[in-house]
Amino acid sequence: MMPPTLQDIREAAERIKPYAHRTPVITNQSLNERVGATVFLKCENFQKVGAFKFRGACNAVFSLADEEAARGVATHSSGNHAQALALAARMRGIAAHIVMPENAPQVKKDAVAGYGGKISYCEPTLQARKATLRRVAESTGAAVVHPFDNERVIAGQGTAALELLADIPDLDAIIAPVGGGGLLSGTSIAATEIKKGIRVIGGEPEMADDAFRSLQAGKILPSEHPKTIADGLLTSLSELTFSIIQSHMERIVTVSEQGIVDAMKFIWERAKIVIEPSSAAAVAVLWEKKIDLAGLRVGVILSGGNVDLGKLPWQRAS
Amino acid sequence: MMPPTLQDIREAAERIKPYAHRTPVITNQSLNERVGATVFLKCENFQKVGAFKFRGACNAVFSLADEEAARGVATHSSGNHAQALALAARMRGIAAHIVMPENAPQVKKDAVAGYGGKISYCEPTLQARKATLRRVAESTGAAVVHPFDNERVIAGQGTAALELLADIPDLDAIIAPVGGGGLLSGTSIAATEIKKGIRVIGGEPEMADDAFRSLQAGKILPSEHPKTIADGLLTSLSELTFSIIQSHMERIVTVSEQGIVDAMKFIWERAKIVIEPSSAAAVAVLWEKKIDLAGLRVGVILSGGNVDLGKLPWQRAS
Repeated sequence: MMPPTLQDIREAAERIKPYAHRTPVITNQSLNERVGATVFLKCENFQKVGAFKFRGACNAVFSLADEEAARGVATHSSGNHAQALALAARMRGIAAHIVMPENAPQVKKDAVAGYGGKISYCEPTLQARKATLRRVAESTGAAVVHPFDNERVIAGQGTAALELLADIPDLDAIIAPVGGGGLLSGTSIAATEIKKGIRVIGGEPEMADDAFRSLQAGKILPSEHPKTIADGLLTSLSELTFSIIQSHMERIVTVSEQGIVDAMKFIWERAKIVIEPSSAAAVAVLWEKKIDLAGLRVGVILSGGNVDLGKLPWQRAS
Repeated sequence: MMPPTLQDIREAAERIKPYAHRTPVITNQSLNERVGATVFLKCENFQKVGAFKFRGACNAVFSLADEEAARGVATHSSGNHAQALALAARMRGIAAHIVMPENAPQVKKDAVAGYGGKISYCEPTLQARKATLRRVAESTGAAVVHPFDNERVIAGQGTAALELLADIPDLDAIIAPVGGGGLLSGTSIAATEIKKGIRVIGGEPEMADDAFRSLQAGKILPSEHPKTIADGLLTSLSELTFSIIQSHMERIVTVSEQGIVDAMKFIWERAKIVIEPSSAAAVAVLWEKKIDLAGLRVGVILSGGNVDLGKLPWQRAS
């Protein structure tokens, strides 16, 4: 696989335009004062299915030739990518086959089914998920759309940074959370191609710091037993996202669990928007001030806003 | 006191323009499907101090002649109006004297102090609050700014509807929550003057239904012991707001506590914005479908987004 180019990202933006939201960029004075920078929040929590994942899935689905598309798409995921792929497929009028572990939360099963996804259940192991996906893809002829190890998906994720820089051209830095690295890859290509010298920074939980360690080691070191409240960031990099990030980005900054929770609560309280912990991992880079961004104009890509309101991390603290 | 005119509201809009946010209007397809109408949410949760109250307070503060303003402003309130008045006064560079009961939550005291308000504490009775306010006003010469029984305040609150109708001119109906009636008064004057025949509806908790009962009786019947999660709507109408509402509005619809909580949670989950229960009381009019608004284009004024995240009504239900 080849990394997408800025041109691929621009084409993705045109392709998904009729289906995806152009999300707003918001600012918040309290946040600026707290972190000592001028922050521009790109609100992918307002994106379809509540996450940036819709951009990549949508670009992948609408990039398929008609003949290929007619056989549907498939993935294994129990998260936002599954919902995003199901919705994008429905918009194109094709089938989406989603492989999920039997023990996935009912609310996630319902969400995928609600977007018309056809669910195939499997044992809750990575091996079973891969085997089941292979079987489903072979029997249906569906195109497999990986959540991040896919150029079309990465190009789609890069459209968020494209829009952000169109709205706020004079950014000094841009921060995105990093899990599998699809969003950070697309962001880093778009940002560095559009604006030479812009600093691209990944925000990663200390408790799932494979990207940080991999960049230091110069080779992929997957997380063994990652455990973080930022449940969208548990995944490790792929070869493709590792190579893109390695060549396009300034650095990964790791953030603490407490920093994620505190930044998340602050955004809810002050900006009055619902963001998920993975979004807060990017905000926490500013919040914890581990690197000097004082006085700069910093874009932050808020990955999404899908949280279980019945299980908020600050409930016990009240 | 005379009700403000549309012209007063337009002048208020010009007056507060440099200080207040022009809040966005958002739509949400899931909400539309759930309630069977096309809903336009005017997001006063994104207003300064997190509530529409800033509009009225700001208009009152900046309407004062210089000489009068120099002596400051005063009010008794422990809610959003106190913060709004303190911030507006700070923006004009004058003092705000806020009378609060000693037992007000620390977070509210801190918020008012944070905006530079000078707090005078009193016993937690309405009598003590009024007496203390009178004493403060006499000793300082400050202009008293009542949270809703004030034409300037009502004119300011009406600017939210003015903006909403400028953005979405072809509304069939507009819903606002009703407590003391300042927001609903301003909304009903603006809406009915701008668009003949528009239906203006107030959303009121069943558990604090003084406006509903007062309109039925044709005279003010204050709530005796109101008790609702929508803590911004505990207040009863004044003569001024009663007379405006009586002459400019279609009807009050009462909503259940469960309807308020369910509508609030739905908005957080689907629209990804933080709204307070008072906002949800307006949404609940659509949610509970007690009147037929099917297929209509309905504006809803979300009053604000100030909630204690440590005490959410659905926590126990999880």
